[in-house]
Parts: sequence; C-alpha cells; structure tokens
Amino acid sequence: MSLLESTIRSILPADEAARAAARARLDQLAMPHWALGRLMDLAVDLAGMTRSVTPAVARKAIVVMAADHGVVAEGVSKYPQAVTAQMVATFVRGGAGINALARLSGARVVVVDMGVASDLSALAEAGRIVSQRIAPGTQNMAKGPAMARLEAVRAVEAGIEIARDLGPTVDVFGTGDMGIGNTTPSAAIAAVITGRAVAEVTGRGTGIDDEGLLHKVAVIERALEVNRPDPEDGLHVLAKVGGFEVGGLAGLILGAAAQRKPVVLDGFISTAGALIAYTLAPAVADYVVAAHRSTEKGHEVMLAHLGKKPLLDLGMRLGEGTGAALAMSLVEGAVRILTEVATFAEAAVSQAESKGPRPLGGHPPERSETPR
Amino acid sequence: MSLLESTIRSILPADEAARAAARARLDQLAMPHWALGRLMDLAVDLAGMTRSVTPAVARKAIVVMAADHGVVAEGVSKYPQAVTAQMVATFVRGGAGINALARLSGARVVVVDMGVASDLSALAEAGRIVSQRIAPGTQNMAKGPAMARLEAVRAVEAGIEIARDLGPTVDVFGTGDMGIGNTTPSAAIAAVITGRAVAEVTGRGTGIDDEGLLHKVAVIERALEVNRPDPEDGLHVLAKVGGFEVGGLAGLILGAAAQRKPVVLDGFISTAGALIAYTLAPAVADYVVAAHRSTEKGHEVMLAHLGKKPLLDLGMRLGEGTGAALAMSLVEGAVRILTEVATFAEAAVSQAESKGPRPLGGHPPERSETPR
Repeated sequence: MSLLESTIRSILPADEAARAAARARLDQLAMPHWALGRLMDLAVDLAGMTRSVTPAVARKAIVVMAADHGVVAEGVSKYPQAVTAQMVATFVRGGAGINALARLSGARVVVVDMGVASDLSALAEAGRIVSQRIAPGTQNMAKGPAMARLEAVRAVEAGIEIARDLGPTVDVFGTGDMGIGNTTPSAAIAAVITGRAVAEVTGRGTGIDDEGLLHKVAVIERALEVNRPDPEDGLHVLAKVGGFEVGGLAGLILGAAAQRKPVVLDGFISTAGALIAYTLAPAVADYVVAAHRSTEKGHEVMLAHLGKKPLLDLGMRLGEGTGAALAMSLVEGAVRILTEVATFAEAAVSQAESKGPRPLGGHPPERSETPR
Repeated sequence: MSLLESTIRSILPADEAARAAARARLDQLAMPHWALGRLMDLAVDLAGMTRSVTPAVARKAIVVMAADHGVVAEGVSKYPQAVTAQMVATFVRGGAGINALARLSGARVVVVDMGVASDLSALAEAGRIVSQRIAPGTQNMAKGPAMARLEAVRAVEAGIEIARDLGPTVDVFGTGDMGIGNTTPSAAIAAVITGRAVAEVTGRGTGIDDEGLLHKVAVIERALEVNRPDPEDGLHVLAKVGGFEVGGLAGLILGAAAQRKPVVLDGFISTAGALIAYTLAPAVADYVVAAHRSTEKGHEVMLAHLGKKPLLDLGMRLGEGTGAALAMSLVEGAVRILTEVATFAEAAVSQAESKGPRPLGGHPPERSETPR
C-alpha cells in the first residue's frame, strides 16, 4: 500500500466522546452559558481531533510550501517569477510577514521547496529549507497538464512525509504558501471542486487590474477546457491544474489528520490544498481549523465547501501562513479556556473552604498586583 | 484644576506625522500592497497614538473593574449579586476566563473594587486587588440617580489614577468588567448617548428569557424617565444611570489616552465606559482599539458611535476583559508587522550583498529548521 493510501485509510472522523466530554466541562464553567462562543466551539473541535480534553497545542509549526507555476507565462501575475525565490530567502532571514507573526505565536517556520524555478540548493544544503522539489515549476496549465499524475502523487506524499517527520515535535500544524502566480491554479481547483463558475472564484491575487482579472479568468477557463479535470478525483485535479505547493499542502493536511492533530488553514492557496485533501479523505475536514477569511474572491465559497467558518476576518490576502500564525493564538486560547477556567463547582467549593484567595489545582495563582 | 479636568485637557488627537510615517513604511513592505489589511490599519493607528513608528506594546495590563448595581433589585439579572464578589475571588485565584486569556497574551490582570456590595477588604489588604470603592453598589436607578455627581467624578478619577499608577510599567491597557446586573446601566448609557431606543440597545446579558428582556427594557425606560440624563454631559449620564465600574473604565480610558497609550476595549460594559469618556473628551476615540463585537445587542451601535470597527467577531459575551485579552495579540502582531518585516528595498539589498541567508538588521534570523 502506498504512503498516500495508508495515510488516507488512517484518517478517522473526530472523536465524539472527547467532544462530548469537552462540551460537558465547558457547560459548567463559572460564566454564563457558552459565553465565549466560538472559542468554546473551537475547544470542542480540538478535543475531538486530539481525543483529549486537554489537547496539546504548545508546539506549533507553520509549514510554508513554495513552488513556481508555468502558467505565469500567460501574464496572470503582477510580479516576476524570481520573487518566489527571493521571498524564500526572506523567510529564511526571518524578515517576512510570516516570520513576524510566527514569532508572535511561538510557532516555528518550516520552509519547503516543493518546486521553485530558481536553484535553492545552497539553502537546502545548509539546512535552512527542506527540499522536496518535484520540478523547477509546473508546466503551463493553459496548454496542457500542470504536472504528471505521478508528480501529483509525489507532491502530496512529500507533504505527508513532512507532517510525519515534524510529528514528534509538533502539536499543531499551520499551512503557508509562496509561489508567484499561485492564485491562478488555486482558483482553477476551486472552480472544479466547488462547481462554481471560474469568475466566481477568481480574484486579483497580488493586485492585478480589471483587465488583468478578465484575462486571468480567461486563462483559467482555457486551462479547464484543455485539461478537463475530474472533480471526483483530487489527484486528477491537482495534476491538471494544480501546483506543487498546493499538492504539498494537501499532503500536510492529510498527514496532520492522520496524526489526529489540528491543522490551521491559512488563506486561498492553503484552502485549495485542503479541497484536494478533502476529495481524497473527507474526514480531513474534522482536523482543519479555518484561520481567516481572505479578501481573495472565492475563498469563502471554498471554506463553505469544507463546512468551515473562518475565525478571523481582517482583510488579509498575503498568504505565507500569516493568517494561520495569527489564529494559532485563538487555538491556544480555546484550549486554555477548556483547561484553565474553574467550573462553578470548583469556584464555589474553594470559596467555601477558605475566606482568602488560594490557587485552584492545575494553575498557579495570579501574581499579586497593585499598581505602582 | 481637578484631576479630571487636567486629564481631559491633556488628551490630544493622534499624531498625523507618526501615522504617515508608519503608512510610508508599510507601503514599502516586501508583500503585495497592504496585503495584511486591518492589521496594517491597526499598526498605523498605534503609531499615531504612541507618536512612534516602533510603538511599545510589550507590557500589557487588563484592568478589571468590579462593582454592584442597585438596579438588580428590579430582577434584571439571572444571577444573585453575591456572584460579583465570588468572581472577584476567582479572578484573584487565576481561575476565570480573563485569567486564562491574559496568561495567553502575557497581560497582567489588575482587579479593582470600584464598589462591590460584599466586603473585599481582606483581598485589598493582601494586595490582591486594588480598592477604589465608592460605595457598596449603586442606588437603584429605576427609582432615582444611581449615584451622586460627586461619586461619578470620583469613579472616573479613580480610573485615571489607576492608569497613572500603572503607567510606568504598562504600554497597553485593556479594559475588563465584573458586576452582576451591569448590562442594564450600560444599555441605559448606550440609549442616552447614541440616541437609540432602549429596546435597540438592550440584550439578554447573562441569559434572561424573552419575558425578562421585556422587563429589563421597561426598567431601563423607567430609569431614563425618572432621571432624564443629559446626553451632552457624560458625568450626568454616569451619575443618573451608570455604574461605579463603568465610571472607572471611563477614567481608565481617559488616563490611557492622556498617556498616549492604546487602550483595548472589551465588550458591552467597557464600551459604555468609552461612551462616557468620549462625551468628556472626544479625542479618546483615537486611543481606543475595539477588540471584538459582543453578541450583546447594541454593542455594534455603541462602537459605531465611537467610529470603531471591532477586530474580532467570535460570538463572545463574557466581559471580564476576555475580548481585550484576545485582541492584545493582534495589537502585538500589528506592531511586529510594522517593525520586523523587511521592505522590498531591504530584502533586495541584502540579497544583492550575499548569496546565503543573513539576518536583516533589527531581528534575529529564523532558527534553522529541518524536520526530524
């Protein structure tokens, strides 16, 4: 059995008993019922994923998958292809948006070359990035398949391997992406899998104008004409109109789900990866936390297809994993509510026992605070 | 000149030059233009408040103001008044929602007795809470003024004093509240200051039913009839239909603005405090960051009156400062984007200088990351 097959088979739905146990505790917290709303819903989800009412979420990693896209030859992006490699170098130096927000949330940033057109071997040899490169960029999907089916499988399996290799030191995965032109294949995937018209799921990416947007839609429509991707077969879709980083992200999501760990989904490109993963193993949706609503058109439709409602809505559209990094603190907050807040009974009991303040079991007392 | 007067006079609008300087840097970051959306807007706001393109936000404090309300005699809340003091004890023990989320964001929790009906002197003497108690709860506003005008002034000045005393060790303030019944005075304040009908700004608080809600609206309408608060005079409104913690929060917000520091506004009660502060010194709005949209009816109308759009929308309605604590990480994220992300020029320059990765000035390189 292939790695992909065995991974898919090992993905089970979230655990109802753990969800119920979490819900039972949250129902009893010393606050009006469910007064922390979606943070409590998220806590229930995390319990179901991890089979635990004390889900581990301390060790976080954002995996930023980078690759290039043959379709940029059609002029679908504002930026030249070389920017993909330049941004990888910026990730490694710690100077990109994802680095800043990952530091904030205490997440590691793992950068993966899934198929960048430039030579990144020096960074890979220095251990600064992980190399899983399939090829130096995909083929131009407007003229034929973006990649061979075997390459699609390799891309997904690379993501599974990365999840597996990181597994022993990571509790929560976050997805990230870099690849000039990659909103184009992602919109193609969205159109195929959600069944929407291309124009409904295609946005401005890095900031193309009205004319550019019409052209981009036309290019994607041509790619779908030429390739006829099968919406029932995620690997077929990926091979025909996908990207290597999208495949890697699909694999990462499958790998996280197989490990029963949450995977915090970033924006448009990451969600395209999730759509591929979802066609392969629908139960992955149980392990996905939708970090935010991107302003990229179509993102909401894609999330709805996965049954997900995003946590944040801050007008972001950078990718790189920035939304996932921000949402990591909500994931940790949800767990803290589940594990650190006293129930009415605990609060009442401790009050009956003592006049003065005393620590509840499980967490230290607040430090004495007098303004000075 | 009184403390209140001198504080009001010292509140100046945010600095346009600092805002422009922040905007200029953000315009140049190595990412598509303004791709982090509201996080970048927030960074500009923080620069304008602090007069700095490297706003200090590391030292955070959530000030939880607690008090009781005479209007609970009208049966407007599901919980008995004793719960206010019980929750204060829970805050001190570190077992409440605010403690869990403040720990997450690295914020101190400062609990203030502004006028709890129970005796909290043991906690105050032990230095576990700050005592600024005006009286053991307000009078019943359905029958007359909630407090004397002098008490209203004292409550606001107490908040200013707390901001002043905390000032040397706090960069960002967050607001929090505890007080059984306090959505009732807060809705009254909202109705008076925004000019909306009581029913439009009155919600279910801790969870009263339809009948209870009708009753609560009627009680507030009666209080407005009896007291005729003057919407142009925040102290008049506070005295007639306010609460001691609401006054304290108004003062905290004024005090933060006077120090040119951001104050992260929690939910419904905190926003009532902000409305009072806003009538006294409209420029305070420049220093307010609206953390979240509470599910309590009327909150959005109140925020709109302040010209604020909330950052989070997670179905929360707990108060205590929980929304403010969560939003603290967005505040810190905004500053990190402003101060830690390379511009296109910086990224390009460093690439031209060296083939390999090297740290940009100002922040350490990412640790080498290979999954294992």
